[in-house]
Amino acid sequence: MTQARERETAQTQAQTPNVSPQRSRGGPSPQARVDAWLGAFESALRARDVEAAAGFFATDSYWRDLVSFTWNITTVEGREGVAGMLGNTLESTDPSGFATEEPPDEADGVLTAWLRFETGAGRGRGLLRLKEEDGEDRAWTLLTTLYELKGHEEPRWDRRPMGAEHGASKERQTWLERQQQEAESLGSTTQPYVLVVGGGQGGIALGARLRQLGVPSLVIDKHGRPGDQWRSRYKSLCLHDPVWYDHLPYLKFPDNWPVFSPKDKIGDWLESYTKVMEIPYWSSTTATSASYSTGSADSGRGEWTVEVERDGKPLTLRPKQLVLATGMSGKPNVPELPGMDVFRGDQHHSSAHPGPDAYVGKKCVVIGSNNSAFDICGALWEHGADVTMVQRSSTHIVKSASLMDIGLGDLYSERALAAGVTTEKADLIFASVPYRIMHTFQIPLYDQMRERDKDFYDRLEKAGFDHDWGEDGSGLFMKYLRRGSGYYIDVGSADLVADGEVKLAHGQVDHLTEHTVVLADGTELPADLVVYATGYGSMNGWAADLISQEVADNVGKVWGLGSETLKDPGPWEGEQRNMWKPTQQEALWFHGGNLHQSRHYSLYLALQLKARHEGIPTPVHGLQEVHHTA
Amino acid sequence: MTQARERETAQTQAQTPNVSPQRSRGGPSPQARVDAWLGAFESALRARDVEAAAGFFATDSYWRDLVSFTWNITTVEGREGVAGMLGNTLESTDPSGFATEEPPDEADGVLTAWLRFETGAGRGRGLLRLKEEDGEDRAWTLLTTLYELKGHEEPRWDRRPMGAEHGASKERQTWLERQQQEAESLGSTTQPYVLVVGGGQGGIALGARLRQLGVPSLVIDKHGRPGDQWRSRYKSLCLHDPVWYDHLPYLKFPDNWPVFSPKDKIGDWLESYTKVMEIPYWSSTTATSASYSTGSADSGRGEWTVEVERDGKPLTLRPKQLVLATGMSGKPNVPELPGMDVFRGDQHHSSAHPGPDAYVGKKCVVIGSNNSAFDICGALWEHGADVTMVQRSSTHIVKSASLMDIGLGDLYSERALAAGVTTEKADLIFASVPYRIMHTFQIPLYDQMRERDKDFYDRLEKAGFDHDWGEDGSGLFMKYLRRGSGYYIDVGSADLVADGEVKLAHGQVDHLTEHTVVLADGTELPADLVVYATGYGSMNGWAADLISQEVADNVGKVWGLGSETLKDPGPWEGEQRNMWKPTQQEALWFHGGNLHQSRHYSLYLALQLKARHEGIPTPVHGLQEVHHTA
Repeated sequence: MTQARERETAQTQAQTPNVSPQRSRGGPSPQARVDAWLGAFESALRARDVEAAAGFFATDSYWRDLVSFTWNITTVEGREGVAGMLGNTLESTDPSGFATEEPPDEADGVLTAWLRFETGAGRGRGLLRLKEEDGEDRAWTLLTTLYELKGHEEPRWDRRPMGAEHGASKERQTWLERQQQEAESLGSTTQPYVLVVGGGQGGIALGARLRQLGVPSLVIDKHGRPGDQWRSRYKSLCLHDPVWYDHLPYLKFPDNWPVFSPKDKIGDWLESYTKVMEIPYWSSTTATSASYSTGSADSGRGEWTVEVERDGKPLTLRPKQLVLATGMSGKPNVPELPGMDVFRGDQHHSSAHPGPDAYVGKKCVVIGSNNSAFDICGALWEHGADVTMVQRSSTHIVKSASLMDIGLGDLYSERALAAGVTTEKADLIFASVPYRIMHTFQIPLYDQMRERDKDFYDRLEKAGFDHDWGEDGSGLFMKYLRRGSGYYIDVGSADLVADGEVKLAHGQVDHLTEHTVVLADGTELPADLVVYATGYGSMNGWAADLISQEVADNVGKVWGLGSETLKDPGPWEGEQRNMWKPTQQEALWFHGGNLHQSRHYSLYLALQLKARHEGIPTPVHGLQEVHHTA
Repeated sequence: MTQARERETAQTQAQTPNVSPQRSRGGPSPQARVDAWLGAFESALRARDVEAAAGFFATDSYWRDLVSFTWNITTVEGREGVAGMLGNTLESTDPSGFATEEPPDEADGVLTAWLRFETGAGRGRGLLRLKEEDGEDRAWTLLTTLYELKGHEEPRWDRRPMGAEHGASKERQTWLERQQQEAESLGSTTQPYVLVVGGGQGGIALGARLRQLGVPSLVIDKHGRPGDQWRSRYKSLCLHDPVWYDHLPYLKFPDNWPVFSPKDKIGDWLESYTKVMEIPYWSSTTATSASYSTGSADSGRGEWTVEVERDGKPLTLRPKQLVLATGMSGKPNVPELPGMDVFRGDQHHSSAHPGPDAYVGKKCVVIGSNNSAFDICGALWEHGADVTMVQRSSTHIVKSASLMDIGLGDLYSERALAAGVTTEKADLIFASVPYRIMHTFQIPLYDQMRERDKDFYDRLEKAGFDHDWGEDGSGLFMKYLRRGSGYYIDVGSADLVADGEVKLAHGQVDHLTEHTVVLADGTELPADLVVYATGYGSMNGWAADLISQEVADNVGKVWGLGSETLKDPGPWEGEQRNMWKPTQQEALWFHGGNLHQSRHYSLYLALQLKARHEGIPTPVHGLQEVHHTA
């Protein structure tokens, strides 16, 4: 507990660099200072005085809003950004009731306060960081989030359903009968308001939220059972993120759940979760095409026509909203190489790799050096294959234990829980750090990891592995946010490369022959198997396939921040492109990411969909512009 | 929150009658007084001074131990009882480290303190109530419970398994492969240490605990799937206890779970739970016979031979421990009545009632007036049957909402949670009230219910219903503990009787004719259907069927306290007969009860089984005597 406290303090310090001298101890208390700021800020808001309100922000400041002011996921910067956002949203938002939820913390000149507030439409939570500027407390970062809509509170806790209908009634319908009737009518006599294509953790988490909110929905997935998205992958796969980071909404993993879930176990959990959360879910169902008709000028009357095949039988669905939750990785990038047609062995993309069983004693060449490549190389080696990894560009590797401890431990761990940082709080702390400056908090963490695992990195580089820490040294999480690739969380396979157990080759593939892979420098690698661990495209590729290339181009690239680092071209976007928020295509949404994002952002997406279902006005501030089509 | 606090205070007052004048405010703090008592008590224990230790108890006092001192579930009374118990157990228990877990409460002259302590074998929690006697703080009630065995702590929280095995290994076995291998070998090349017969909530909760503790176990059940125990019952059935009371170990229902689970929903939960908790569970399996061979004098070498049929195929299992979890209700009591052979309609015990669908417009006679009778009458009426209830003896009825609010609300409800009373705390508070005086806490609660629902009871009696409040006015929960019958938790059907929608007849059944039921007073009731809602026998009936009448008689009656009230003959037993503790038959155990009991007592039964599995000495203090064979 003491240790946890110490670490928490360290983390708080890491997150709040020393931006101003400590106030004298004789001044007003942190509570009084936060209350004063909130009172003045709210007065300006009440007076609709946008400039005054913006004046309470520091010169360098960030306001991140999740749906509560903007009906969008947006970060604005500086007083000008705040004024611009408020000018557009203040009247329709009608915010009030800002108050602290617990006593504020002060560390290194930064006051941190948990907030609650209301808007005309709903209730919100926030996290405020104040620092002193020109002798005044000014907002450095403000996170505002919507968590419920007034009049549409979720049926939880005090509001949970009775289950039994007490009293006697000749029209009684049992829970089972209602379930059966709903299942029979869905897609035939009744239409889902929301169709979620893809039923992995993203679709399931969103399906659970929409069920809770009473939005008629349907999740469809091509696999035979919920969870098969995980079960069908290579057999040694375990989650790379630890359990505390992976909870789904409403129902947490039990205390005995493994730190890193084996794939079949997480598959079973997702299947059970889908059942007990009563998510309308069609397995063995594929969407084959979709088109949108706008309807009248009155927005919200538009409708999708989605052709699906359920258990092989064609069916037309007519949802009002379409969510693509088919994987943030997008469609597999399968390279087109000369000689692929003459190669006599097996060849497939990593996403189609069946596992190592058939390759005992075989010569295997894995093209790529990120997560999938390492996992597949490791499993092949364990089964006695002769394995060569072809590294085409540099990769960032962190050891799982170091990432867990240094990268996530202060927010998602037993020690975080012991320090009062629940999953829900951790999610908001995480969300409160503006993307623009997030790398500055990440760099010191990765510096620590570099130090701690120095021997490992030395060995790896000695083995010829081309290793990087991200262009600015900000490591894995920023690579994930910027490009969703370029890294490996080491659970053991990196040592195989460092030790030469898995052989390493370098460069692009020039062509294949009947029995070899030939690299650009002429190196010839004998191969019975070639695995293309060559990554994935942008998620709007799914939209191109399902809807049209035109819609995919209109929507543009999905994922990434515009950081002007490799594979994340600028301009700066402020938020992840197209994720969980309105796109340039009306009624088309993208949802996904890891379990953490599926849990956290499904709430904001679900609230946006619920509001539209209920006809609550949702004026979108700052609809993103499109700078890249893929 | 304020309201919750007020109610909590009210409850504390209800639970701690005014036994001594309030101390002056200037005296030592509650913490100091509890610390002083604990220090002195522990010194006496350390000195093995049994008489001195007993002297710290009040004249009227109760020490309830769940497995920590006695390897039994036992309550001793007064100084003599305490001295007797300590004389027998103190040396082998070697207790130490008594300390408060949070600041003690004081109300109405009673100090209440949450404790932790250790024994040689394990770690415990307790709840102590002190009152002043002869100017000294003396123990009025003490609860001691074991929660873990040293060196055998459960793999939870910080101890949870890693899941992934980091590093590369050519002998890697995946989680799925281990699961499959275990399933294949269980019952053929490996034997369960514990066989649990019966896989309803009781068997499932125990199976989960044993899995966590690493005790090789197997749960078998005759139904096709876990949860079918509920699914197969009449279709309008919902749990009669509210959700907060019904959690299983390790994995709580989500916040959106209905207050009263519909039967199919709880069935689905049990099935999912069995899967995600990895409980070794064979469905479609019946135990046909069992016998025990003692083996050598060295206890623990005995072994059961249990013949089972799995999917119709015979198989012999050889567990060391046998747990009957086939339902606390025991075997159905089917009356033998003249004319049952000539009756032309349908007739069956309530446990075999298929539901109302086939009886639309039919004349239905339900013999009995307890829970099942009311539920079945209500469902038949809802389906347009002509229903008559035959009341043979008086019944106690409480309205579900009143029971939930007044009877359970301070321990198991949203308001209890808001007041910091978690399920785990509530279970221990509940367990800390000695059975000997529990009725004195219950009577005032039922007096409140009588007052609140006066109109209802007036109407019911006016309709001729023979209503009681238990022999001593202590109501439903005492009836449940004493005899497991004689009551109905009204969810609506009682109004049908009060309103005459369900007709009421009185007396014993004399005989049946081809088309009627004839009562002792000559009343003739036309019948197309007769349902015998005539209750259940003692659980040792299961032992008679499975093992032998001799073993059943040796073990004696299961359930009940010896309260000398109807169907619970004396002498006073102090605890529920034969439940969750050693019986007169070595290696035979009974487990069951409602969801609350299945959750709470499964821990103590599992720890007893774990200790035996590990060869930890388990000297049983106060093995119960047998006073009744059924």
